[in-house]
Amino acid sequence: MQSGEDKLIARYFKPLATAEGALGLRDDTAFYSPPEGHELVLTADAVVAGVHFLSDDPADCVAQKALRVNLSDLAAKGATPVGCLLTLALPSGTPERWLETFAGGLKADCELFACPVFGGDTVKTDGPVSISIFAFGVLPRGTMVQRTGAKAGDKIFVTGTIGDGALGLNLLREPARKAAWSLADPEAKHLIDRYRVPQPRVAVAAAVRTHASASMDVSDGLIGDLAKLCDVSGVSARIEAKSLPLSVGARRALSSEPALIESIATGGDDYEILFTLAPDRIASLRELAAAANVGVTEIGEIVEGHDPPRMIGTDGATLTFVRSSFSHF
Amino acid sequence: MQSGEDKLIARYFKPLATAEGALGLRDDTAFYSPPEGHELVLTADAVVAGVHFLSDDPADCVAQKALRVNLSDLAAKGATPVGCLLTLALPSGTPERWLETFAGGLKADCELFACPVFGGDTVKTDGPVSISIFAFGVLPRGTMVQRTGAKAGDKIFVTGTIGDGALGLNLLREPARKAAWSLADPEAKHLIDRYRVPQPRVAVAAAVRTHASASMDVSDGLIGDLAKLCDVSGVSARIEAKSLPLSVGARRALSSEPALIESIATGGDDYEILFTLAPDRIASLRELAAAANVGVTEIGEIVEGHDPPRMIGTDGATLTFVRSSFSHF
Repeated sequence: MQSGEDKLIARYFKPLATAEGALGLRDDTAFYSPPEGHELVLTADAVVAGVHFLSDDPADCVAQKALRVNLSDLAAKGATPVGCLLTLALPSGTPERWLETFAGGLKADCELFACPVFGGDTVKTDGPVSISIFAFGVLPRGTMVQRTGAKAGDKIFVTGTIGDGALGLNLLREPARKAAWSLADPEAKHLIDRYRVPQPRVAVAAAVRTHASASMDVSDGLIGDLAKLCDVSGVSARIEAKSLPLSVGARRALSSEPALIESIATGGDDYEILFTLAPDRIASLRELAAAANVGVTEIGEIVEGHDPPRMIGTDGATLTFVRSSFSHF
Repeated sequence: MQSGEDKLIARYFKPLATAEGALGLRDDTAFYSPPEGHELVLTADAVVAGVHFLSDDPADCVAQKALRVNLSDLAAKGATPVGCLLTLALPSGTPERWLETFAGGLKADCELFACPVFGGDTVKTDGPVSISIFAFGVLPRGTMVQRTGAKAGDKIFVTGTIGDGALGLNLLREPARKAAWSLADPEAKHLIDRYRVPQPRVAVAAAVRTHASASMDVSDGLIGDLAKLCDVSGVSARIEAKSLPLSVGARRALSSEPALIESIATGGDDYEILFTLAPDRIASLRELAAAANVGVTEIGEIVEGHDPPRMIGTDGATLTFVRSSFSHF
């Protein structure tokens, strides 16, 4: 009596539904209770083929990116992942092999980040593959780090490196730039991997929760996302281009083509945490980040005012960009 | 500094984010704590233009259907709605008027069902409009009604009327059937309205939670959904075609074209609750349903065995159908 849809769910997604409340996906719903004294953090993001990933990106990477962009949001708020629900819209004729690879990638990440599937929906579409993931995490009640707490004098930090994802997308679209940027194979691969499979900074979520005055993840571009954080905090900011943490490949590309500073600072797809710290919190934060083996870099300072954040170039002048961040509309 | 996407969210969706933890949608995440002793019920459903709704369906109805199919799942489990997150994939060139109407419909339902928006994502697509809604509700811990508890001897009930949505879709696709089925204008309109805007039975969620041994909502067709419930409960069922609760329009259509019993019983889009009750619970359930002003009808009985459920026609013979329910795959 099982329909095709039921078989597909049983075969590919039931193995990912390891939480008790997911009921092995045999119900349309799941249940969950946060631990005593904790609350839920909720987020949802959609990715669409041709917009957020390329149609020929490997299906396992697509699944991982779809989940990780959500985990990045949770990490930036200080939350520990608990689970996710996904809706998957597939064009007719999607090869079963694609789905198998997709589910395999998702399973690996559900396990890696202890974030099993609690439910979802699989539907047909006449359009491109579209994946919506809703993820939820927990943290001690009242401790979610918002965007609104940045104060003049706070230092601005980012995790990891900035700009890799935007440069990786550039390389996928125009492979000739690999030579133009004098990139070795591993450097080019690193940038592309960073575009395809971001690294959510779950490992420093607790450190951010404990010390940050404001926090968000960088998804639409560093400058634009910093502007959003400053706007809702009622402050401005000044950051230094020379302080931006860059991967070896990004640094080499930037040397070859200095105008890439714009892609790096505004291109998005970073999925690093952008956060602000009162100066007396810096030492403790650095200690926790080192223990978690996640790089953190001070890139500037929150200042008074309501102007958009300024980024100072290596020549000491303020850089101006055509657009500050990615927007769909 | 606001992007087009930010403006769109601020204009159309922020007014729907009335819960404290939604933070006015100025963050990418939200927070929520269930009341002491309660747990969350989680569900997600996607709807795609051309598949789940017609491209020329009114945008407010589309929003309402997208939310209500989720609320129907929560109600069938006995949960009270708390909130939702939505991801919205829009083709380029979607008129702002469409979005305004969509948000207006959603706002009306967020208020009607006390289910505000906690977050989401708005993205571009080269395909049709696609909406994913994740909804969550609460109920006393451990009381979620599953599909697995049906026992031989339990009576089978449904809320409301069955088949209207499937017949309404039929009418939208082939308007000439209105005359063939001898439908008056209000009858045809009722069937179409039932397809476009289902009625989630939130009002009887507590009654179902208190009394039902198993429960689910009918979305893919009564027979197929009953088969799923029986399968996971390890039982079979026998229902009577003559007992199915039908609206005036459905009854008239069925008189004109008796073969429509198949569309009625398997077409789906009902969003009624299908539940089973031990006989000694029937009187109490009926009392609570009457107080909630929701019709409930006994349509058959759970029996021992593992055969697919049987539906007995008015001539006493078992009806057989080409397919038992809607499936995308």
